[in-house]
Amino acid sequence: KRARDYGIEIGILKTGPYNSITDVKGVKVGHTSIIKGDNIRTGVTAILPHSGNIFQLKVPAAIYLGNGFGKLAGYSQVKELGNIETPIILTNTLSVPTASNALITYTLQQKGNESIHSVNSIVGETNDGWLNDIRGRHVKEVHVLDAIENAKSGNIEEGNVGAGTGTNCFEYKGGIGTSSRVIPENLGGFTVGVLVQTNFGGILQINGVPIAKELDNYPRNYTYDVDGSCMIVVMTDAPLNSRNLERLAKRAMMGLAKTGGIASNGSGDYVIAVSTFEDNFIPYPNKSLFIKTKELDNGAITPLFLAVIEATEEAIINSLFAAKTMSGRNNHKVEALPINDVIKIMKKYKRITSDKK
Amino acid sequence: KRARDYGIEIGILKTGPYNSITDVKGVKVGHTSIIKGDNIRTGVTAILPHSGNIFQLKVPAAIYLGNGFGKLAGYSQVKELGNIETPIILTNTLSVPTASNALITYTLQQKGNESIHSVNSIVGETNDGWLNDIRGRHVKEVHVLDAIENAKSGNIEEGNVGAGTGTNCFEYKGGIGTSSRVIPENLGGFTVGVLVQTNFGGILQINGVPIAKELDNYPRNYTYDVDGSCMIVVMTDAPLNSRNLERLAKRAMMGLAKTGGIASNGSGDYVIAVSTFEDNFIPYPNKSLFIKTKELDNGAITPLFLAVIEATEEAIINSLFAAKTMSGRNNHKVEALPINDVIKIMKKYKRITSDKK
Amino acid sequence: KRARDYGIEIGILKTGPYNSITDVKGVKVGHTSIIKGDNIRTGVTAILPHSGNIFQLKVPAAIYLGNGFGKLAGYSQVKELGNIETPIILTNTLSVPTASNALITYTLQQKGNESIHSVNSIVGETNDGWLNDIRGRHVKEVHVLDAIENAKSGNIEEGNVGAGTGTNCFEYKGGIGTSSRVIPENLGGFTVGVLVQTNFGGILQINGVPIAKELDNYPRNYTYDVDGSCMIVVMTDAPLNSRNLERLAKRAMMGLAKTGGIASNGSGDYVIAVSTFEDNFIPYPNKSLFIKTKELDNGAITPLFLAVIEATEEAIINSLFAAKTMSGRNNHKVEALPINDVIKIMKKYKRITSDKK
Amino acid sequence: KRARDYGIEIGILKTGPYNSITDVKGVKVGHTSIIKGDNIRTGVTAILPHSGNIFQLKVPAAIYLGNGFGKLAGYSQVKELGNIETPIILTNTLSVPTASNALITYTLQQKGNESIHSVNSIVGETNDGWLNDIRGRHVKEVHVLDAIENAKSGNIEEGNVGAGTGTNCFEYKGGIGTSSRVIPENLGGFTVGVLVQTNFGGILQINGVPIAKELDNYPRNYTYDVDGSCMIVVMTDAPLNSRNLERLAKRAMMGLAKTGGIASNGSGDYVIAVSTFEDNFIPYPNKSLFIKTKELDNGAITPLFLAVIEATEEAIINSLFAAKTMSGRNNHKVEALPINDVIKIMKKYKRITSDKK
Repeated sequence: KRARDYGIEIGILKTGPYNSITDVKGVKVGHTSIIKGDNIRTGVTAILPHSGNIFQLKVPAAIYLGNGFGKLAGYSQVKELGNIETPIILTNTLSVPTASNALITYTLQQKGNESIHSVNSIVGETNDGWLNDIRGRHVKEVHVLDAIENAKSGNIEEGNVGAGTGTNCFEYKGGIGTSSRVIPENLGGFTVGVLVQTNFGGILQINGVPIAKELDNYPRNYTYDVDGSCMIVVMTDAPLNSRNLERLAKRAMMGLAKTGGIASNGSGDYVIAVSTFEDNFIPYPNKSLFIKTKELDNGAITPLFLAVIEATEEAIINSLFAAKTMSGRNNHKVEALPINDVIKIMKKYKRITSDKK
Repeated sequence: KRARDYGIEIGILKTGPYNSITDVKGVKVGHTSIIKGDNIRTGVTAILPHSGNIFQLKVPAAIYLGNGFGKLAGYSQVKELGNIETPIILTNTLSVPTASNALITYTLQQKGNESIHSVNSIVGETNDGWLNDIRGRHVKEVHVLDAIENAKSGNIEEGNVGAGTGTNCFEYKGGIGTSSRVIPENLGGFTVGVLVQTNFGGILQINGVPIAKELDNYPRNYTYDVDGSCMIVVMTDAPLNSRNLERLAKRAMMGLAKTGGIASNGSGDYVIAVSTFEDNFIPYPNKSLFIKTKELDNGAITPLFLAVIEATEEAIINSLFAAKTMSGRNNHKVEALPINDVIKIMKKYKRITSDKK
Repeated sequence: KRARDYGIEIGILKTGPYNSITDVKGVKVGHTSIIKGDNIRTGVTAILPHSGNIFQLKVPAAIYLGNGFGKLAGYSQVKELGNIETPIILTNTLSVPTASNALITYTLQQKGNESIHSVNSIVGETNDGWLNDIRGRHVKEVHVLDAIENAKSGNIEEGNVGAGTGTNCFEYKGGIGTSSRVIPENLGGFTVGVLVQTNFGGILQINGVPIAKELDNYPRNYTYDVDGSCMIVVMTDAPLNSRNLERLAKRAMMGLAKTGGIASNGSGDYVIAVSTFEDNFIPYPNKSLFIKTKELDNGAITPLFLAVIEATEEAIINSLFAAKTMSGRNNHKVEALPINDVIKIMKKYKRITSDKK
Repeated sequence: KRARDYGIEIGILKTGPYNSITDVKGVKVGHTSIIKGDNIRTGVTAILPHSGNIFQLKVPAAIYLGNGFGKLAGYSQVKELGNIETPIILTNTLSVPTASNALITYTLQQKGNESIHSVNSIVGETNDGWLNDIRGRHVKEVHVLDAIENAKSGNIEEGNVGAGTGTNCFEYKGGIGTSSRVIPENLGGFTVGVLVQTNFGGILQINGVPIAKELDNYPRNYTYDVDGSCMIVVMTDAPLNSRNLERLAKRAMMGLAKTGGIASNGSGDYVIAVSTFEDNFIPYPNKSLFIKTKELDNGAITPLFLAVIEATEEAIINSLFAAKTMSGRNNHKVEALPINDVIKIMKKYKRITSDKK
């Protein structure tokens, strides 16, 4: 059961049918979870903006550095050119190069890419080194290629899966979470979908309720415990150019804030925002000197800002609800969010008024 | 009575003695409120990082563009040089040039500045044009000079005062608000103070409680109503360089997010962060080629991030609690936050447990 | 006579018919020169991207901070929204607020702007305080309004005129200069026009010839003498979005580099780049949620980069060739570039091969 | 023979004893050149800011995106934290992940790094795919580790070596080049050293002389031929913080401009600037909350700007003078700069006045 199934309704906007990043038409997500022996707890998550040859049909995008203590690959070219040309891969910190290599392999071997000499891999990461033998770099190229190949639309797994297999969040087991919002038809009717890989700290709040305080479970110093990271991927079918996608990405950090996250010094908090509006895809090579685009006016973007804030907040909470207690490296054990206790607290604070379902 | 006097306790850190930006040693704040006839509802607020000649003893600073739809003066030089050389002035949108001119006047006439040919005025603004005849540009240089001259430490006024005289926030009367936090001694014992000029929209939450939903008072479209702006000034005695001040500034937007703000398209959301650690002030002219500084290590900054998030959230709420119903231009009237109703809702949601005082 | 009339041919691309920023269709330039008594040597230059109501027909734009030691007004909103909504004004450092106020006056009083409450003035500056009593702030709003009103297409004045009246460059009299380039038809046939206000230092080179070394006229210390600033305005009819306009703006600094400029610490070097391609103008208010644009593909922008580098280099040299010796404040006197000597040096170095005209 | 040995003296400042990046005390450079069979022409260059454990003694740094069409690894963490924690590696575009992995390997295995879980690899690249079978990804981790191990001070090889083995520049064979400048003692006496990996296009000028025009060898269209990239590494013993290092880095592009480079759309032009002033190194872990630094005052930085412009220009020219004609993949052949012809042209334009040595 997801947070919403317990009666936790974040925000005022409607979700999409799956309450998932895959509510954005054409978006697919694939996971490879790598769990072996006592100490390997890691994985890969792939997010595809469309199912075609992305190098030959590039997609408008922007990356926002919420807090740049991280190893994300691909930033500068997206900043310069305003688009991405590969799937987005999430994995662990020390496996970014392997994932990056895998995206090169993936792209070079695609039909029509036989003479391509340059690929800008997009890879994000968080550090799962508490549960996972991260120094062992157990992610291999094949895991990345599998995640891409297995990517699908519709319902996607959350929690201890893919790049979220070994992550922690707010002192509990974190992982992958997703959510979506649809803005009213008269404002454009667009969908915003968010997927997060949660591995960060702070003072947990759920829909405004002070969970961490109630559970007496938050750090009293702030130098190590609250470190960690959050990767946030935002997809929308709204026709946004890269400038407005960067603005949208910035607001995702406001959603993170509402869960009690503080973007601590050691946190690698990145938001990758992508517009899947097909008519704005950029053909490569382009036979024309020009591109014709239809773009959302600056003045019409505000409801999308609200949508991304709400969907990010809920995606993070969903990651906590889905993740299960896990043991790993050095007998480290991370407990799942104690959902029963949380529900009691939510009721105490009147944020769950009726028992849903 | 301020929010905290009603038992609303935001966050986990302690406030400073005044719960005010003036808890940061040396910081002074001055207001000039301009209320005339039926349609003039505006003013000026001055924030001084120290009481000396700021041009000759420049102060490390950074400005973060939360959302740059605004006319703030002084950004590029602060970005380039990492310091400010004038007091910070807040006023209304169309009076930025006048305030900027006043800062030039102020600086040129100071003793020792007789041969100065260049001044980088720092002026922020929000748009009070709903209540105020903003097109009339009723702020004069003398109002700015008065605000500087009258600046004082200790308790400062909030609400409909100074640059907050005519502003609106979350469909209620906004204005000036302030708050502070002190981090634990073993983490440095530093103070972070925040002052806000609130004029923005969103879906109001107070300490996580869905006030706007309960009062059924939030915009159903998002193209005009939620527009507005928030100026946020952050002072700290922690020895931060401009790079880390920019990081601190960024977190203030996370505090704004927790009040339900969404940084809408039309919002000019700026954060000016300043370190008042005296040994790092920059003498002008500098007889040496060098500056010796003592800086906080990157790794020790996280508790300050938490502090600025909490203080910004509380400063915004304080602005709403202090502001009174006001009428102005074209018989526009903006109601104060209905505090009694709010307190009832806070109690319903168990966020005020006892009647304080 | 301009540099080209002496046989100095910078670059490989063709100029437009006027070799001026006004070669970009629709662009107009107006000057107000203020020369009074012994010590007032300043002025205003206005550059209009089109002759309509700019607030209601906003123009795609970007501003690049070459070196941000300056007081330019309007940066953050252009960064956020990607457009300008007023003419561009150049003046002296301490008159930026006055010029900014004048742009507000200009905009508020335009037909159809009766209910406008917000204007983002674009004002650049350099410091003419050596020749001019800059502390006296002798520029008045009327000077700005006159410059706008008198703006015209076709040939425009260079040298000691408008905002260039009192400026210095490479130890000689600087001022206003302009130049343009047209790229080949098969690459789009676009025009790039540049206008500069030169007030900076370095080691002067003209078309690669070491003029400063030959004239033994360059600073041996670098703390004061090379200070100063350069404002660069770039107009193009190529359909560039704000992201690509920022990239274009960046290259203007490469043109400045080729004259021997070094963007010294105290230099306020700003580039404002604007696309005058009419179909991409942004209507305000916009009745639609969308804007349809035709944009140059990233891959087609390189010839425009070359064009802006060449035109900036030549515009700076043109400013030096046009400026005349001037005396001003405190009996300061700045000599014009010794053109006869320069021509001799250019011939010695074989960069003028024949006597033109 | 290097450019200067032919009497080509760029700029007005003195070089260091080796006219090399290694003139900056403590800096070492190592190359691995990989030349195999008909089609492998690539390699690795390592630049070390000091010879200690860089992860445990981090070094103030900044990265400037001249044009971000490239795959540089490590940008965001340097932007956020202001330092680097690994050697700098240069290689080919598709080998960035391998080099990044090698830096992780290098760091994890260093004594004292046994519990490190996170490493921010700094890897730059240019695309040698014309001469090299870049799709084959022939660079292996061992090549990178060798380059680091073999790094040395003093004279270093230029031309077809290391990461410059297979690159092209201005239609000729490019490669590695280096140069340095020392500023006058009374201004601080600091050294600035530059190393470049040249692989870009434009309209070649040498010390202001129009070589490309004279040799009639420059592109008439600008969509492919001028593409390419330039990696620029800047080291200085001046005590610069990351903000001022970014400013220094920016000026390197002005040096590139003076060679006729235009930073074309497809160029990945990055500048990595590092201060080797030991007292400012950042210990990890830091037992104190603070760092004490001695920093150059903003006002003293200008001579360093001139130094980096001159050294970058000369380093690029040195790369062309050192590189030899090379054949590679698909029988592609790239000619060396025709030095005899160039010297003749330089003499014609009076930029070599006497036969040196």
